[in-house]
Amino acid sequence: MAKNNVLLIGAGLCGSLLALRLGQRGYRVRVMEKRPDLRKVDISAGRSINLAFSDRGLKAMRMVGIEDKVLPLCIPMHGRMLHDKSGQTKMSNYSGRKHEYINSISRGQLTALLMDEAEELENVSIEFNKKCTHIDFEHKKVSFFCYESKREFEIQADVIFGADGAGSVLRKNYYLAKKFLFSFSQNFLSHGYKELTIHPDKGGGFKTFKNALHIWPRGEYMLIALPNLDGSFTVTLFLSYNEGEYNFNNLTDPEAVMDFFREEFPDTLALMPNVVDDFFENPTAPLGTVKCSPWNFEGNSLLIGDAAHAIVPFYGQGMNASFEDVVELDKCIEKHEGDWEAVFNLFEQTRKPDTDAIADLAIDNFYEMRDHVANPIFQEKRKLEMALESQFPDEYNSKYSLVTFNEDIGYRDAMIMGRAQDKAILNMIADQEINYDENLKEILKKVNEETLEILDEDKVAKTMRH
Amino acid sequence: MAKNNVLLIGAGLCGSLLALRLGQRGYRVRVMEKRPDLRKVDISAGRSINLAFSDRGLKAMRMVGIEDKVLPLCIPMHGRMLHDKSGQTKMSNYSGRKHEYINSISRGQLTALLMDEAEELENVSIEFNKKCTHIDFEHKKVSFFCYESKREFEIQADVIFGADGAGSVLRKNYYLAKKFLFSFSQNFLSHGYKELTIHPDKGGGFKTFKNALHIWPRGEYMLIALPNLDGSFTVTLFLSYNEGEYNFNNLTDPEAVMDFFREEFPDTLALMPNVVDDFFENPTAPLGTVKCSPWNFEGNSLLIGDAAHAIVPFYGQGMNASFEDVVELDKCIEKHEGDWEAVFNLFEQTRKPDTDAIADLAIDNFYEMRDHVANPIFQEKRKLEMALESQFPDEYNSKYSLVTFNEDIGYRDAMIMGRAQDKAILNMIADQEINYDENLKEILKKVNEETLEILDEDKVAKTMRH
Repeated sequence: MAKNNVLLIGAGLCGSLLALRLGQRGYRVRVMEKRPDLRKVDISAGRSINLAFSDRGLKAMRMVGIEDKVLPLCIPMHGRMLHDKSGQTKMSNYSGRKHEYINSISRGQLTALLMDEAEELENVSIEFNKKCTHIDFEHKKVSFFCYESKREFEIQADVIFGADGAGSVLRKNYYLAKKFLFSFSQNFLSHGYKELTIHPDKGGGFKTFKNALHIWPRGEYMLIALPNLDGSFTVTLFLSYNEGEYNFNNLTDPEAVMDFFREEFPDTLALMPNVVDDFFENPTAPLGTVKCSPWNFEGNSLLIGDAAHAIVPFYGQGMNASFEDVVELDKCIEKHEGDWEAVFNLFEQTRKPDTDAIADLAIDNFYEMRDHVANPIFQEKRKLEMALESQFPDEYNSKYSLVTFNEDIGYRDAMIMGRAQDKAILNMIADQEINYDENLKEILKKVNEETLEILDEDKVAKTMRH
Repeated sequence: MAKNNVLLIGAGLCGSLLALRLGQRGYRVRVMEKRPDLRKVDISAGRSINLAFSDRGLKAMRMVGIEDKVLPLCIPMHGRMLHDKSGQTKMSNYSGRKHEYINSISRGQLTALLMDEAEELENVSIEFNKKCTHIDFEHKKVSFFCYESKREFEIQADVIFGADGAGSVLRKNYYLAKKFLFSFSQNFLSHGYKELTIHPDKGGGFKTFKNALHIWPRGEYMLIALPNLDGSFTVTLFLSYNEGEYNFNNLTDPEAVMDFFREEFPDTLALMPNVVDDFFENPTAPLGTVKCSPWNFEGNSLLIGDAAHAIVPFYGQGMNASFEDVVELDKCIEKHEGDWEAVFNLFEQTRKPDTDAIADLAIDNFYEMRDHVANPIFQEKRKLEMALESQFPDEYNSKYSLVTFNEDIGYRDAMIMGRAQDKAILNMIADQEINYDENLKEILKKVNEETLEILDEDKVAKTMRH
């Protein structure tokens, strides 16, 4: 069978992986990227320099055969290290099973690896500084502007993939062209984010504990930090634009910023003497969720990755979800190769419930990380879950584990199961139904019974609702 | 205090009521309407000729003092009259309390009344055939195109209200101008709708029972009919665009349409000998939900009614919700008159949870009307609820009653309470926990206990989630 000419817009994490996979399948893939080649020019500009990378992402790396090249880029983070106002820290593991942890990875290094792998295939090419300006998805013609030649040009393709991120041009064209009913949502949190840096110490070492995701939870705002291979940490401040005593709109001079950090995050001042400079040099960015449907137009074009489902970063699943898209799409190609419309329809039908779920879970986690990690009922719940996971590793998985470490369970099933478990445990704690003198096996049995009852009752009510 | 110059875009149901109320408060109100004056030209064109009108709408009419003029326009509908395939009918009342019913009312007649009342005030004017083309909400300048003079002109206002419906130009300007983070969603159901007509009989009488909302529930599709004062019924067909054996995309010739009605709605053929003509003459329209935030920009402009929250028609609350907007806005003006930003912020903060709730309830009801009214568990639930409402009129309100007949309970509280009750009753029925030999008082007690427990458990889990 003659393989199609694929036009792929966007050479970010998802686009580069997709190019590699379609290349491995024998398609002629032409990738067009708006930005310069990040392997030659530093374009990070203080926006999500590193990312959480976990089992769903790793599964995708295995699919394309580069797991061994990715692992050296990873820094394991075994849990959340919580920093209170007095500077005291407490480690809260992500799982009761020792082999389950997440990783910090550099966006730039991982993208570069994927690009290198894709370009090694003779049927894949990547062109940079080519901004997509318009997509005629009815006739599969795409217009670009080249920042180097300053000229417009058009490409005719057999099939178009929009892996062009949260601000997708393909998605915007679906919306504005009004050729079909396009369901679409963009929802912003009241909070934005700003990146700061903990530089390495003089010897190039880490200034604080390396193998953790550090959190300073303060209710209305939150600071987190993820390690980088060079000994630095990328720190992210999550803060309201205009609510509360401190917010992005009123932190307008160095004094105010210093006061804020001195008051709320005193132990970070020794780690970040540069905090005020970073604060005013780096941009403030919004936190948005995008959902839409349909993702494809008559088999001509498909939205994938953030272009189809941008999510907030609080579950550390944004990149993992986009990589999993490619794994799931690959299964659909396997089934219906040669018929893109069938491939794309099956992909959206099976995948969208999962990407909707991780979008909602990520918003839940915004509140959980900000408020609840420091809440006694939540801490009791986590303690119990850690005990259940370590004592019954094959019998119990927390919601966090289901989402993060169980790549063969879809996000939606993980959400339904995980929320029911959370509800069961929280109510048992609130009602003081957990007797810690009982053996843990008895407690697990009760949790499972309560969870099943909740699932069952929700099912009856939901069947009637949908 | 000097009263502001108000520019109000849209003289539909919501805009006309708002003009009347702001006029009564002494503002100088200039209303600009895109369409011709519906009191002079017939512009109905087969799109929602009549509407369900109930207690929340009536409350708004009382506020502006025209209840006595509205009631003569109403046709009471005491329940749903269900038509099965054999033509058998069964009445299912909306409430166990005799005085609780909804009404069918003509969109045109009610709008005309509101316009007449508004225009009687010397400080209110309405201009027609003026299409809003652009809104500079930063400088409060609005551009219009006059279909009569064919000229563009601009109006400077002190404050701008966008009551310009589901396709709001003000909302579009909020979205496209990118002056602030605008959360926005439009979601379409897979179904569209088309209006048909049951004409009066030769004597001008009603061809089927007058005082009901008729439903032909068929799972994948549904027909409903609401009476008009002239003896006709406006019938609406809800049908998928492209799924199932019959859909809008494949019903393309008269034969197919006749087959569909003969097969699925045989008793309607005698009532609508004109069905095929209507089907091909009238447009097919989509069913969409719109949510957005913020509704106001710095006190300069406000979205209201469908412009702020378009909903699907299945709870019969679209118009009622828009009218209630005006009642709630009026309370906010009462509190903060003179400070539009405070008025608008309070309005959105208090109102949006309720409009979000009715949007979700309306989608729930799509499934309920289509599928469940014919489902035995649902029918048992409705029977029990009717018995509870008629025997304990002050102690029990079904979800439907809370939403429709309890105008002093917000939609959101009605939703939370109503869904918990539904879940309690449905689970009790499914688990065969209801013993009909018991006296009804005992059953009510059990329902209330179950409901409270569900509310309580949800509360613990939700506190942890948000």
